[in-house]
Amino acid sequence: MSGASREQRSEAEAAIMRATYRALCEHGYAELTMRAIASEYGKTTAAIHYHYETKDDLLVALLEYLLDRFVERVHGVETTAPAARLDALLDTLLVEVASERELAVALLELRAVAPYDEGVRDQLVRNDEYLRYLLRTVVVDGVERGVFDEGVDPESAAETLMTLVDGARTRFVLHDDPAVLHRAREAADRYVADALDA
Amino acid sequence: MSGASREQRSEAEAAIMRATYRALCEHGYAELTMRAIASEYGKTTAAIHYHYETKDDLLVALLEYLLDRFVERVHGVETTAPAARLDALLDTLLVEVASERELAVALLELRAVAPYDEGVRDQLVRNDEYLRYLLRTVVVDGVERGVFDEGVDPESAAETLMTLVDGARTRFVLHDDPAVLHRAREAADRYVADALDA
Repeated sequence: MSGASREQRSEAEAAIMRATYRALCEHGYAELTMRAIASEYGKTTAAIHYHYETKDDLLVALLEYLLDRFVERVHGVETTAPAARLDALLDTLLVEVASERELAVALLELRAVAPYDEGVRDQLVRNDEYLRYLLRTVVVDGVERGVFDEGVDPESAAETLMTLVDGARTRFVLHDDPAVLHRAREAADRYVADALDA
Repeated sequence: MSGASREQRSEAEAAIMRATYRALCEHGYAELTMRAIASEYGKTTAAIHYHYETKDDLLVALLEYLLDRFVERVHGVETTAPAARLDALLDTLLVEVASERELAVALLELRAVAPYDEGVRDQLVRNDEYLRYLLRTVVVDGVERGVFDEGVDPESAAETLMTLVDGARTRFVLHDDPAVLHRAREAADRYVADALDA
């Protein structure tokens, strides 16, 4: 990579990530090829291999890219009030997915591949840990400010919410019905009211 | 199939289901072949094709078989008390999976294939509908007997519990840790205590 500046590299890599994202949504994981990604990128497969050696490297980088994109959306939320921040996190995790069905399908495929692919699995675990960390932090903040009950275990609350999120996304793929996500969002609200609210 | 009696057919089909189950657990969906199933069955692939034309037919039949097996386990529960029956259902859905990791992996692969395979998807939807029906029936019974709160919506309660179940199974595959299932079982208990109990 000695021929390109760091800035050129990161611009190219961002463009490759967007191309990989589009190709993955269009073809699904099973049919995803370097050719399809190169076609979305508008360059040769060699131009991609310059940055990412294998399809696996690309997928791991894509999972990081999707996490970054998620974190950016969440940081766009202006409020610091714990209940409102938790609401916004759950909206981003559960409701915004409704308009990204192809992504939900592709992410479920990556989850199914994870037991056979260490790179994908490790990155999926990192993404999951980061999402739970975001949820936990909001819950801890809410407990400290007296918005959430002092008996709440933030770790366990974050895991329960992520279990609802993962279940709803899995069910959304099966039933192909955004109402599944909206009802899970309501279930998450009821959980917050019953188990967290002070 | 005119050469075999109904009884011979159903015995052969049960043996093929057990062979398909073992082959699926051993190889995973992506590597599952008719050869591997025939090898578990101890006969030729032609002997399987006599009963099931395609791998897809086999997988759909296997999903029915797994549902039947589940229903048999659940019917083994002696009590008719709604709370105890709900406990037993949740144990079967969440805890017993812990010792069947390969099956959990294979079922997640089938879920990921569902958007591309109508036969598998339709059977997965039927299985999901039946599991929700079992949960709903217990909740309806509990509301009628005054064990659960009269304001409970059984349909919505059944869906929330299935969302926790699907989320926990998906997370079990990713984290390869039975503790994920046990913690989800506790979360389901808390949901029953907070949202259902009268």
